[in-house]
Amino acid sequence: MISRKEVARLAGVSEATVSRVLNNVGPIKEETRRRVLEAASQIGYVPSALAQQFARRRSGNVGVVLPFMPKVKLFSTYYFSEILSGIGEAAQRCGYDLLLIFNSPDQRHDYAKLFRAQKVDACIMLGSSDVPEERRALKELQMEGHPFCLVNQHFGGEDFPAVDADHVSGSRLAIRHLLEGGRQRIAFLNGPPQYSNSGDRLRAYREEMREAGYSVRQELMFVGNYSRTSGYELAGPIGEGIAEGRIDAVFAANDRMAIGLMQGLAERGLKAREHYALVGCDDSDGSRLISPTLSTISVPFYEMGKLAAERLLSPEKKEEIGNRAEGNGLIRLPVAFEARESS
Amino acid sequence: MISRKEVARLAGVSEATVSRVLNNVGPIKEETRRRVLEAASQIGYVPSALAQQFARRRSGNVGVVLPFMPKVKLFSTYYFSEILSGIGEAAQRCGYDLLLIFNSPDQRHDYAKLFRAQKVDACIMLGSSDVPEERRALKELQMEGHPFCLVNQHFGGEDFPAVDADHVSGSRLAIRHLLEGGRQRIAFLNGPPQYSNSGDRLRAYREEMREAGYSVRQELMFVGNYSRTSGYELAGPIGEGIAEGRIDAVFAANDRMAIGLMQGLAERGLKAREHYALVGCDDSDGSRLISPTLSTISVPFYEMGKLAAERLLSPEKKEEIGNRAEGNGLIRLPVAFEARESS
Repeated sequence: MISRKEVARLAGVSEATVSRVLNNVGPIKEETRRRVLEAASQIGYVPSALAQQFARRRSGNVGVVLPFMPKVKLFSTYYFSEILSGIGEAAQRCGYDLLLIFNSPDQRHDYAKLFRAQKVDACIMLGSSDVPEERRALKELQMEGHPFCLVNQHFGGEDFPAVDADHVSGSRLAIRHLLEGGRQRIAFLNGPPQYSNSGDRLRAYREEMREAGYSVRQELMFVGNYSRTSGYELAGPIGEGIAEGRIDAVFAANDRMAIGLMQGLAERGLKAREHYALVGCDDSDGSRLISPTLSTISVPFYEMGKLAAERLLSPEKKEEIGNRAEGNGLIRLPVAFEARESS
Repeated sequence: MISRKEVARLAGVSEATVSRVLNNVGPIKEETRRRVLEAASQIGYVPSALAQQFARRRSGNVGVVLPFMPKVKLFSTYYFSEILSGIGEAAQRCGYDLLLIFNSPDQRHDYAKLFRAQKVDACIMLGSSDVPEERRALKELQMEGHPFCLVNQHFGGEDFPAVDADHVSGSRLAIRHLLEGGRQRIAFLNGPPQYSNSGDRLRAYREEMREAGYSVRQELMFVGNYSRTSGYELAGPIGEGIAEGRIDAVFAANDRMAIGLMQGLAERGLKAREHYALVGCDDSDGSRLISPTLSTISVPFYEMGKLAAERLLSPEKKEEIGNRAEGNGLIRLPVAFEARESS
């Protein structure tokens, strides 16, 4: 066992000085500090806290990978904040701290390295998207046997552990509600296609419209980026469609876009419920506060985050939760339609 | 320099096996794994990633201490989500990951230990409160010279680094606005006293009322816990006061309590603006969505989080930001009053 004594001898300082440097306590000359660290590094000495951590092979952290989007206040979005609250609740109960890791298009994290460098013991991916490098990174994690779980995203053809919601059924309920209310020219405001839930909703929209005997026309399809601004900006073309009688309802893939659209259309004198019917997705706080209140699909984001964390961290629950997964590792939670004033 | 070879010899396995165990790669027998880890621990060998990290004395994490409140979806509150978004933005730009650390009444973290165990390189405290053990823990951090910063909290008599907002001036503006609107019987719905901003607002309320020639009566003072529910539940006694003409306005210490109160009073047939004037604090998304829209105080929480993180992490900005602090280490950002429909 290498001791503090040997480090002191090699660095030519007292043991007390070694302690002060290694515990980062009190003022210390930079030159002395450097000498002690070099000596410690040279003979492979680590202070006990770190050595213990190493021996236990446990960082005590669960990683949460998030997309970094400049100017987007990520934590202020209902979607991320609910999932994070659920993860936080479970992590706290299981004795883990949450390490938030931001991915940006130009600086993508090497997931496997997070494990190898012992930054995390398990990892949850939020806002993951279906692009080749993401698939590769997740496949590597899986092959090396590191515990991870995706939330609200699945990858066709892979069997990555994931906790998702039944967006197909939810969207079908929303479209059916609009059809039953006599709406026939239902526009669809979707999010970007690399998210599996965008694909799920598109499938539901197509199938439901076809089953009702309507053709799915390109002029009824709009794509935003799930931000309120993107909904607001599409009020131009969608408002035109409403004014000219080509659109009588809108199904938006999240509440933020729906609320932005509602505000943009209101500025053009078009009121939800009076001039068009509107349905969002998420059941965010905003959907209940806005006037008219927004019909929406209630998605259990909080529970999804909690379940993903427990599946990875809870010694008592992980097996039971794992057994709930489909053959491809996916757990799909049910959603509910909430009819409100806007439709 | 201790090598992989020596670990292999001591554990009686091949070097390749040592690599697999230490990099956590591939399936390995538990017995072999244990033997390799013990050998490595015994002779003090650490794999290079960890050794480098140790030599650099840098975890690459900035800690964010949060209060853990069961059943409260912390990230879904405007206050925490905005501050976290600001911290996240700055941390990402400075190359740090965010380690979220939850404090609960029965399990309080030893802040200094977070540094000694190299879990964090710097630490930001949110939702810190003025209780003896918190003061002690922060004093210890300060004495050991660890970099930390409080957000939206200051401690009288201490010179802890902090980024706060000018809650006194903001509250004065709100009270003055109500007085100028002809309101005389202004109730004050405050948060718990251990938060310095509760104390700041109480001081402002007292001073402003006295200056206007009104006595500060105990029957006009209410205390919630900053949750929507606590505002909702106080609709009983406050509604009685309004109905009996003892209260003609309410100043609430945050928007959530104001919105809960507004909803509770509406159920009793009492409408904001019509039967009483209402002002909140925070300028949350909800304050703009609710009807009538809520008059409030705009607090730059996002900027506060960003500034605290940059003060600790940004090599270019930390000095300039530090210079903006008052003698006691406190930076106080200005706030603005937003008059809306509710008053």
